Amino acid sequence: MNLVAESLKNMTLKKLAALLGESVEIEGGGAVIITGVCSIDNPKTGHIALAEHPEKIVWDKNTERPAALIVKKVFNIEGLPLLIVENPRIAFAHILRHFYYEDEFIGGIDPSAVVASDAEIDATSWIGPLAVLESGSRIGAGVEIGAGCFIGENSVIGDNSFLHPNVTILRGVTVGKRCIFHSGAVIGSDGFGFTPSPEGNLKVMQVGGVQIGDDVEVGANTTIDRATLDMTIIGNDVKIDNLVQIAHNVRIGDHTRIAAQVGITGRVTIENNVVVAGQAGFQNGITVGEGSVVGGRAGVTKSVPKHSIISGYPADDHKKSLYLQAMQKRLPEMMERLEKIEKYLEMKRDCEV
Amino acid sequence: MNLVAESLKNMTLKKLAALLGESVEIEGGGAVIITGVCSIDNPKTGHIALAEHPEKIVWDKNTERPAALIVKKVFNIEGLPLLIVENPRIAFAHILRHFYYEDEFIGGIDPSAVVASDAEIDATSWIGPLAVLESGSRIGAGVEIGAGCFIGENSVIGDNSFLHPNVTILRGVTVGKRCIFHSGAVIGSDGFGFTPSPEGNLKVMQVGGVQIGDDVEVGANTTIDRATLDMTIIGNDVKIDNLVQIAHNVRIGDHTRIAAQVGITGRVTIENNVVVAGQAGFQNGITVGEGSVVGGRAGVTKSVPKHSIISGYPADDHKKSLYLQAMQKRLPEMMERLEKIEKYLEMKRDCEV
Amino acid sequence: MNLVAESLKNMTLKKLAALLGESVEIEGGGAVIITGVCSIDNPKTGHIALAEHPEKIVWDKNTERPAALIVKKVFNIEGLPLLIVENPRIAFAHILRHFYYEDEFIGGIDPSAVVASDAEIDATSWIGPLAVLESGSRIGAGVEIGAGCFIGENSVIGDNSFLHPNVTILRGVTVGKRCIFHSGAVIGSDGFGFTPSPEGNLKVMQVGGVQIGDDVEVGANTTIDRATLDMTIIGNDVKIDNLVQIAHNVRIGDHTRIAAQVGITGRVTIENNVVVAGQAGFQNGITVGEGSVVGGRAGVTKSVPKHSIISGYPADDHKKSLYLQAMQKRLPEMMERLEKIEKYLEMKRDCEV
Repeated sequence: MNLVAESLKNMTLKKLAALLGESVEIEGGGAVIITGVCSIDNPKTGHIALAEHPEKIVWDKNTERPAALIVKKVFNIEGLPLLIVENPRIAFAHILRHFYYEDEFIGGIDPSAVVASDAEIDATSWIGPLAVLESGSRIGAGVEIGAGCFIGENSVIGDNSFLHPNVTILRGVTVGKRCIFHSGAVIGSDGFGFTPSPEGNLKVMQVGGVQIGDDVEVGANTTIDRATLDMTIIGNDVKIDNLVQIAHNVRIGDHTRIAAQVGITGRVTIENNVVVAGQAGFQNGITVGEGSVVGGRAGVTKSVPKHSIISGYPADDHKKSLYLQAMQKRLPEMMERLEKIEKYLEMKRDCEV
Repeated sequence: MNLVAESLKNMTLKKLAALLGESVEIEGGGAVIITGVCSIDNPKTGHIALAEHPEKIVWDKNTERPAALIVKKVFNIEGLPLLIVENPRIAFAHILRHFYYEDEFIGGIDPSAVVASDAEIDATSWIGPLAVLESGSRIGAGVEIGAGCFIGENSVIGDNSFLHPNVTILRGVTVGKRCIFHSGAVIGSDGFGFTPSPEGNLKVMQVGGVQIGDDVEVGANTTIDRATLDMTIIGNDVKIDNLVQIAHNVRIGDHTRIAAQVGITGRVTIENNVVVAGQAGFQNGITVGEGSVVGGRAGVTKSVPKHSIISGYPADDHKKSLYLQAMQKRLPEMMERLEKIEKYLEMKRDCEV
Repeated sequence: MNLVAESLKNMTLKKLAALLGESVEIEGGGAVIITGVCSIDNPKTGHIALAEHPEKIVWDKNTERPAALIVKKVFNIEGLPLLIVENPRIAFAHILRHFYYEDEFIGGIDPSAVVASDAEIDATSWIGPLAVLESGSRIGAGVEIGAGCFIGENSVIGDNSFLHPNVTILRGVTVGKRCIFHSGAVIGSDGFGFTPSPEGNLKVMQVGGVQIGDDVEVGANTTIDRATLDMTIIGNDVKIDNLVQIAHNVRIGDHTRIAAQVGITGRVTIENNVVVAGQAGFQNGITVGEGSVVGGRAGVTKSVPKHSIISGYPADDHKKSLYLQAMQKRLPEMMERLEKIEKYLEMKRDCEV
């Protein structure tokens, strides 16, 4: 991914606004030339910045000033030109895509890659150095397989997917279109299935697969286990952060987002449009209903219905969890009040006697 | 791992029962032909399924029906033939092994592997493409080293062990027989040893090794550090899930199972036959007694004796932890009751005055 | 890393003391020959051991005895010679460095490595087998790049840094001098940036980089994401353990140490000289002040000032957290006392009526 030569992508704020569609307004300086995107904390001359909380901006006298700001509402900051949009984050994402681009590549197979004779690779796809493709693997159109990746027997990578270097996709995994896998991700490792037996821990063979939808992103060093039987299923447009564990036979619904270090144990179902914050964990076999939000570090021990907002351990309704947390902080006070009553009653008893 | 051609492995329920040994009974349909194994949630014609909770089975009118069920007790489900066994999970594991098999392989070294001239490799073992074997490494009989694996100086891999692609075994690590390592596992990384000094964090060299017993399985992206001095020791038949951290000088006893994302800090001893659930953590240097069970997310801060069942943070007896959890949920009620008493006493006092 | 031939490194306790500098004292046996370093739990004849808690030493009759002990104060253990130092751990670290040494290497590029024609590699550095160096990467002097490592476009590795096998450094990452990266570490993966939009989760391109100072150590399978814009910054002398997640735009100050499985979310600042224990987590965007200590599993939800000592979830002052923990354990007792009062008052009421 590289910054395009500025002379090619530079444009006026007005033209940039036009790229974003109809509901965009400009406040002052539509003729200013925008040459790139900068952050609000580290502004750069000629660049446009996202200002989600313009009221919090504190700039040093000596730092540079951006050329314009992306905002939701009119807000006067040193009279800077504004791009006023309904959803500044979406506009920001689109503007980034204007100024940056993914490296272009030409289809081909690096001579150092080790590719089985019967692997099917579309001519428009690129297989990086020292990648290994096993027998029966199939690579769609416009795919990039990074250096050192492994694609196991009979696995399929859909069109325009991108594997960063050193990703491991084991046998019998199906990946949809436009997916992104970050380095160190392992897809299709065995589920953790053992049965205590008189001879020790008897391994339950893991003979299922993994099926990944379209537009999925999988973070660095995340692991997704194959199913014991059937499939571990990741829906469409699912986004998974780094170091997440997804066990055998899990099902993740469409559009769900899972933050770093979350642990999802065997046979859990997380339905569509769920958001799971970092380090949360889930008990075997439970279901998290559509549209739910699971707080950071939540330990989810029971199934929850649609649109639940939960946190804490064991996870409960978020407001209830917060209230319990507040109550816990009042424990010393409660103890004091309890003791006061006891003393008072003793005193009374003494008086009465 | 592949499904064997059905015509070769198909057999009657009666013959399948005979394979499992003496204490197996058949209820109805011993002559039915079994052609594979399916899951209870996704039944397939001709296949046998494990029914651990037959009373919970709910099948759609239109889904296929399995050929037979593995059960513990007689249970009438649409009159399906039953394989009745003392331990259905063990039977299921054995039946899976009948219908599926690990790919066979012929010993040899892929020409793209980089193998030190003095590495000793048994002729029956296979070294995958782009694997690296350093000087003094020794590979036993019937071993598979997957693509892209690294075996460091003087490390030893015992007979019939299997390394999935992209496993890293650093120098001076000893692995027993029949072990399985999943992709991305790192064995023999340095322990986290630093001493604050006037010059900053002074590294304590980690010059010990790692010793792994027989029949051990290590999950994807799990890390096992070498000892500062001496050895980090993993016993026999230890099963470790994905993304587990095992620090320097830890000792894990035989048959112990450790679920995903568990963190075991330096010098911890976990004795034989312990079960550790996901995301648990352990304080430096403590000991968990033989046969103990450690609950999910438990934070174990003190040594516990044999056969402890613990959970919570800080971990305590599991029943006690559950009781405390229940109590915590009653905090708002306690506060109300406390306030009621206070009001009543105030009222009384007012009356008395 | 190897043990030097004993004949070369052996020396008397007196000479060893002289190596350590001025404030070292010897108690008895300055002429004893020291041939190596052993652990206090597994003593070996001729070796010196660190005795941090000499009062706890329990040796079997039949185990070997060490040649001498490193201690803070005079302590008589079977009359063994003592090396008395102000800081025994520092002395131990220095003595280990005397008896062990890193393997020497000669600069060069393994013929199996895949190196871009315009990569700049100092002649004194070594590029291991099957490593991949992309266009514009720059490798300083005395660097070791282990087998299977990946160095992306325009990334820079400073002098005398050491990458263990299978480390992934993506494009645009700058690494300082004398850094150590353990296997499976991934530096420069995309930050987890998505914006919900009518078309699903819209990816926010991650176009920033990662900047790593001097003397940094990064653990096995740890992930450090690149910044959305600007830089994710790791200061000097930062030590990071295994399986740690460091998200986009995080800043870690000099000398800070972070234990295994910690999760640091986007835009968090951890200042200089902070110690973070295992499995702790941090809320987006907060700041942990200089010199703070964060307890194991702490869930840090708010910024904390300099020199804070915090633990628990949500993290609070450590003493307060401990007190609350103790209070929670007294909940059943509180409930009993509350019920006793209620009964007493009821009884009284009944009498009064």
